[in-house]
Amino acid sequence: MKVKISAIEYYLPPRIEDNQVLASENPDWRMDDITKKTGIFKRHIAAPEETASDLAVKAAEKLFAAGTRKYDIDCLIFVTQSPDYVLPTSACMIQNRLGLPKRCMAFDINLGCSGFVYALALASSLVEAKTVGKALILCGETYTKYILKNDRTCRPLFGDGAAATLIVPSERDQIGPFDLGTDGSGANNLIVKNSGARIDRDHPPDGKKPIYMSGSDVFLFTMNMVPKSVNALLKSAQKSLDDVDLFVFHQASKLVVSNITRHLKLPDHKVFCNFAEIGNTVSATIPIALKDAASKGVLKNEQRVMLIGFGVGYSWGSGLIEWSS
Amino acid sequence: MKVKISAIEYYLPPRIEDNQVLASENPDWRMDDITKKTGIFKRHIAAPEETASDLAVKAAEKLFAAGTRKYDIDCLIFVTQSPDYVLPTSACMIQNRLGLPKRCMAFDINLGCSGFVYALALASSLVEAKTVGKALILCGETYTKYILKNDRTCRPLFGDGAAATLIVPSERDQIGPFDLGTDGSGANNLIVKNSGARIDRDHPPDGKKPIYMSGSDVFLFTMNMVPKSVNALLKSAQKSLDDVDLFVFHQASKLVVSNITRHLKLPDHKVFCNFAEIGNTVSATIPIALKDAASKGVLKNEQRVMLIGFGVGYSWGSGLIEWSS
Repeated sequence: MKVKISAIEYYLPPRIEDNQVLASENPDWRMDDITKKTGIFKRHIAAPEETASDLAVKAAEKLFAAGTRKYDIDCLIFVTQSPDYVLPTSACMIQNRLGLPKRCMAFDINLGCSGFVYALALASSLVEAKTVGKALILCGETYTKYILKNDRTCRPLFGDGAAATLIVPSERDQIGPFDLGTDGSGANNLIVKNSGARIDRDHPPDGKKPIYMSGSDVFLFTMNMVPKSVNALLKSAQKSLDDVDLFVFHQASKLVVSNITRHLKLPDHKVFCNFAEIGNTVSATIPIALKDAASKGVLKNEQRVMLIGFGVGYSWGSGLIEWSS
Repeated sequence: MKVKISAIEYYLPPRIEDNQVLASENPDWRMDDITKKTGIFKRHIAAPEETASDLAVKAAEKLFAAGTRKYDIDCLIFVTQSPDYVLPTSACMIQNRLGLPKRCMAFDINLGCSGFVYALALASSLVEAKTVGKALILCGETYTKYILKNDRTCRPLFGDGAAATLIVPSERDQIGPFDLGTDGSGANNLIVKNSGARIDRDHPPDGKKPIYMSGSDVFLFTMNMVPKSVNALLKSAQKSLDDVDLFVFHQASKLVVSNITRHLKLPDHKVFCNFAEIGNTVSATIPIALKDAASKGVLKNEQRVMLIGFGVGYSWGSGLIEWSS
């Protein structure tokens, strides 16, 4: 069985926080310098009681409004690090809210910036192995709820959002291969302490559970691992950089994407970026970028695209797809 | 590519809580009546700072001690509803603790009592589609940390534990097919409120985050859905009940398993049970039961086994395997 992405929709919450807001709340920040590095001017912020699953439901409803039939979906993968509960899995609640059939397998996977590529590998394998017929990948994240107002590393980067992607059988093989990897030695460089079962005595639970990111460590990991993963994938797919029409990296920031672009000697027009107005929406960045690239005519039917996710874990994944709108 | 389960090991924490302890702490409980219904006499309890990932690491280390080579594993699926953190995913930390190769995909999936069957469907699909070579499924759970001392519904049932299961290529097709399903309308009948991003105003966050189970609702769901799933799976596999050598149900309790057995008119000797001394270890019950059944000689090479998981979500899954030790 061969597979493809048949549709993508996304949802961003209406409230926008631009860099003027951040500067006014943090007069000690050199906002111009920060913006020059991040390339990000605004971010969308979920409402106080709005969760990642709420955003994901809205993204999925746009997919159904655009013609996707609910009845056919027998797999729902919800990628999130902001689940509604430790139990039950949010995906089960989403199955009910969306009115998906009961013969639908539904589960959350906990992954961040690499999550969409992993979910794509999972969903396409499930369809290829005929375990399921059609799979819906929902990526939803509300990292802003973990970020303190004065966190200069994270607040200028992360925004909230969700994307819905449909994986269906195809006449051609339009998804894969993948290069996937993990290095848990970097786990402590992007973490929310005391947010689960592990008790961190050095960070006593005090009600606040802020995210911590060592920006320099995560940057070094990215610059070390992402080019390796891109080249490993090209080798296993027996392709060259020239065979790829468009590169869609996880929209981490301008600093990250432009340094990878330079390192790999990619022409700028082959690297799609849309972080400026959206920020880093974690696992949702890649499907949102794909949808925007297609909407703007940058991405066309039958083009070969490389998707590269990387970050928290550390976890990374690259995959090749052939686009069909 | 065809697949099989090649090895299972499990780990139970050494501390045991028997029914005398529960009775002495809850003099108002009719412990004899409870025991008659549950069939459970004792449960293993994780140490205060011991998490589900700690248990899972110990189960995996037993697998390696028994001969499984780490180097070959390029997929790690950690099934848990007690993750160490909301981020990063516990599986990345486990990859590092176990010394698994960096070319290993690693992620948590959030599922409870259906989790092993789902992970088996995922892992076998990933190997069948050649996305990965060998997959390690870790099921680890510490539900006892969510249970109040006086919770008469949950405390007599749930114990802590973890299992490690290796999925590898095979000459014969020894895993599948599956029948998988979801009904999120039952989500509120087994839940830990205020344990994630969703704010439940009727259960204000007060530090305590106890599990709530409507035993009668979950029982009704089980009695309605499990026989249907068993029959749906037999139909899609073109098999009859007589073609199945052993049924391994999720070890929910004696009441549940014996009622399903009676409803399906299964002979007792074809239904393996080991809840009496272990209790309900959520996603770990089925692999633990498989290992015990094989160790006791009840389960033999080339026998056909049906695995049936069901519970929190609601989520359920049935699958057929051919055993090879």
